[in-house]
Amino acid sequence: MRPGDRLNELTAGDIVRITSSGDATAEAVVRTCLDRIDEREQAVNAWTHLDADHAIAQARVIDAGGTRGALHGVPVAVKDIIATADMPTGYGSPIYAGHRPAWDAACVAAIRAAGGIILGKTVTTEFASSHPGKTAHPQDPARTPGGSSSGSAAAVADYMSPLAIGTQTGGSVIRPASFCGIVGYKPSFGWVNRHGVKPLSESLDTVGAMGRTVADAARLVSVLAGRPALLDLPGAARPRIALWRSDTLGKAEDDMLACLEDAASRFSTHGAYVADVTPPAIFSDLDAAHHEIEFYEMGKSLAFELIAHPGQISAALRSRLEAGQACPPELYDEKHRIAAEGRFALRPVFADFDVILTPGALGEAPLGHGSTGNALFNRVWTLLYGPAVTVCAGRGRHGMPLGLQFIGLLNDDRRVLAVAQWAETVLTR
Amino acid sequence: MRPGDRLNELTAGDIVRITSSGDATAEAVVRTCLDRIDEREQAVNAWTHLDADHAIAQARVIDAGGTRGALHGVPVAVKDIIATADMPTGYGSPIYAGHRPAWDAACVAAIRAAGGIILGKTVTTEFASSHPGKTAHPQDPARTPGGSSSGSAAAVADYMSPLAIGTQTGGSVIRPASFCGIVGYKPSFGWVNRHGVKPLSESLDTVGAMGRTVADAARLVSVLAGRPALLDLPGAARPRIALWRSDTLGKAEDDMLACLEDAASRFSTHGAYVADVTPPAIFSDLDAAHHEIEFYEMGKSLAFELIAHPGQISAALRSRLEAGQACPPELYDEKHRIAAEGRFALRPVFADFDVILTPGALGEAPLGHGSTGNALFNRVWTLLYGPAVTVCAGRGRHGMPLGLQFIGLLNDDRRVLAVAQWAETVLTR
Repeated sequence: MRPGDRLNELTAGDIVRITSSGDATAEAVVRTCLDRIDEREQAVNAWTHLDADHAIAQARVIDAGGTRGALHGVPVAVKDIIATADMPTGYGSPIYAGHRPAWDAACVAAIRAAGGIILGKTVTTEFASSHPGKTAHPQDPARTPGGSSSGSAAAVADYMSPLAIGTQTGGSVIRPASFCGIVGYKPSFGWVNRHGVKPLSESLDTVGAMGRTVADAARLVSVLAGRPALLDLPGAARPRIALWRSDTLGKAEDDMLACLEDAASRFSTHGAYVADVTPPAIFSDLDAAHHEIEFYEMGKSLAFELIAHPGQISAALRSRLEAGQACPPELYDEKHRIAAEGRFALRPVFADFDVILTPGALGEAPLGHGSTGNALFNRVWTLLYGPAVTVCAGRGRHGMPLGLQFIGLLNDDRRVLAVAQWAETVLTR
Repeated sequence: MRPGDRLNELTAGDIVRITSSGDATAEAVVRTCLDRIDEREQAVNAWTHLDADHAIAQARVIDAGGTRGALHGVPVAVKDIIATADMPTGYGSPIYAGHRPAWDAACVAAIRAAGGIILGKTVTTEFASSHPGKTAHPQDPARTPGGSSSGSAAAVADYMSPLAIGTQTGGSVIRPASFCGIVGYKPSFGWVNRHGVKPLSESLDTVGAMGRTVADAARLVSVLAGRPALLDLPGAARPRIALWRSDTLGKAEDDMLACLEDAASRFSTHGAYVADVTPPAIFSDLDAAHHEIEFYEMGKSLAFELIAHPGQISAALRSRLEAGQACPPELYDEKHRIAAEGRFALRPVFADFDVILTPGALGEAPLGHGSTGNALFNRVWTLLYGPAVTVCAGRGRHGMPLGLQFIGLLNDDRRVLAVAQWAETVLTR
């Protein structure tokens, strides 16, 4: 805790320390977050549900009990695609406005069991697909914060909440985190139980974390996934970093490319081994594979809504669902085969490298609110199931954040987080 | 349709034919099913929810419209682990007695879109785990019908419904089908969207079908999975059948082993190539891998219920959840690695064979209602993700059905169904 910090600006790690030691109450932490929201929500529109009294009541329960785990007294914002038994859950759709689930999602239950406080529900795009919600970028209201975890990213970036849960099917954690200048962490596929998360695509949906430091995002996933080893990240003295020279890299904006090259050079200066790597040939087919798998599965997951509530589905979503329902199952099977081949082809890369380095997004958060941006640099990695962590590496030509992304092999999250934490130190030096 | 058949005794294929041609109404079909239920439910206890008026109303809507797909006018029983917007969904737990979901599960939506009628909800064990529900075996009320899809299997076997949906995490479709003398079909993992199915184990839960013929079970999955190719199964003139000589085969009861050997011999006589195959070494580790993966994931999926409603969880389930929550994540990761190795090791077998043949269960449906039987011959195949189809192959020493199981490679369902249909013909000759 630096002198002058307000409680809402602390890291989750610091909050746990001071609420556990008695230097501050969870209630005081929650109140400063609520004050910040009060001050800023009109501009940012990060929240779909916020009940100050209920948040304070949760904090008082924590304050009345003992230390209860790795999120003791820490407020967490929850993307509104995720079920909460004590708060409405609308999935970003008018169909479910005011809907109250019968249960907490597994990830919400895990947060509560670790002493965390569910501060409220944050804006998601419609069913975590593409149709945007109301949230603006905290640093420039004319820009998108990214999505689909729009409110979660904005709330963390704007010091409304130290932590937030998001979900990623394409690039819905990493991209908004990159746009908002915070840390986004999509863990290995399968690490965080998805019960209570409204499914978009069973083969791709992944629950992830947002925080303002790598250690904080790792702390949240340590609880979500029940993996305490993430609370204690090892050092990464001389990380081996593969600079991923994909054929899509040229689609990144100039300032993002400059940021990438500059960061690579700084990583080298600070002792990393950084080398260019050309992706295996199968990589050219993976983005199309992601596309078909996502749409095919959406067409099934949201079939009920399309039949029962056709008038309350956006035109953008309807066209995706219809495209997915028209995809032949044999093509879907073939795309899964390609994805499996991609996962296999990735393994040898990690014999020589600890992580792959790519942009977290095409560039700065774009102007306008008609789209939450392009997930080109994220989709393939979601499909390949390994961990991805984005760290803010600089600013673009309009002063907006640029995030770089570190990627690892399935279940090798701790190594990727360690390298990302090392990079975070180098980049803020 | 054979002379003297009652409408409730018809196959789904016959029902579609007569309701489409106008030879009978969907309402008449539903009414005969309801009559049968009326007559038999007190002994069988297959249903948790049945509203005759609502079932008839659905049938009238079908009768008023045109032909609407592969289940036109066909009643389908739905396991009560699966969400229905118009019927209570209790998940086999007192926690959710009377719960009404906001949506139809994706599989239910698919049935309705194909002209099917959701007849009612059938008994499941508690959360589709082990604690039994109230259902008795239709042929001997002192015996279990198997589980967890207990009511679905009993309803189909007892001519209450031509088709039913079940789910399988261990052996919850194949085992009860084998016990009840019907066809159970667990499709390839990933074929049937699971939205609205209360999750037990994300890596294992699979929606499946029960019917009285292979063609009927295939018909239901053709709709659930959106794979019309299953409506037209090819012939299987000289199927290549691997008789799976696993080290667990000796655990089958004597009458089941005799049934297996006898069927193999009849298959040979009718032109099949049948040969003994010894499983690859990795197979000895797969049952334990299934166990850890299932329990670990259950511990997360049902964390909310264990925290919020501890007094309404059975002792058996509680001990499973606690065991799962105590499983180290590194062990879970290792078990997934073993499962992947098992899937890889299975591929060469199918270079030489169309299907693997094993018992569908240890033997006849056991006496008593304290357990729904042992899933030893099912768990490994659920873990390996390929299709499994059980067909009744004879009777045991107490006159109860014995089912054999045909297994294939992931996505090779049509071939396995074709062989199972061929076997069905041979076995009923």
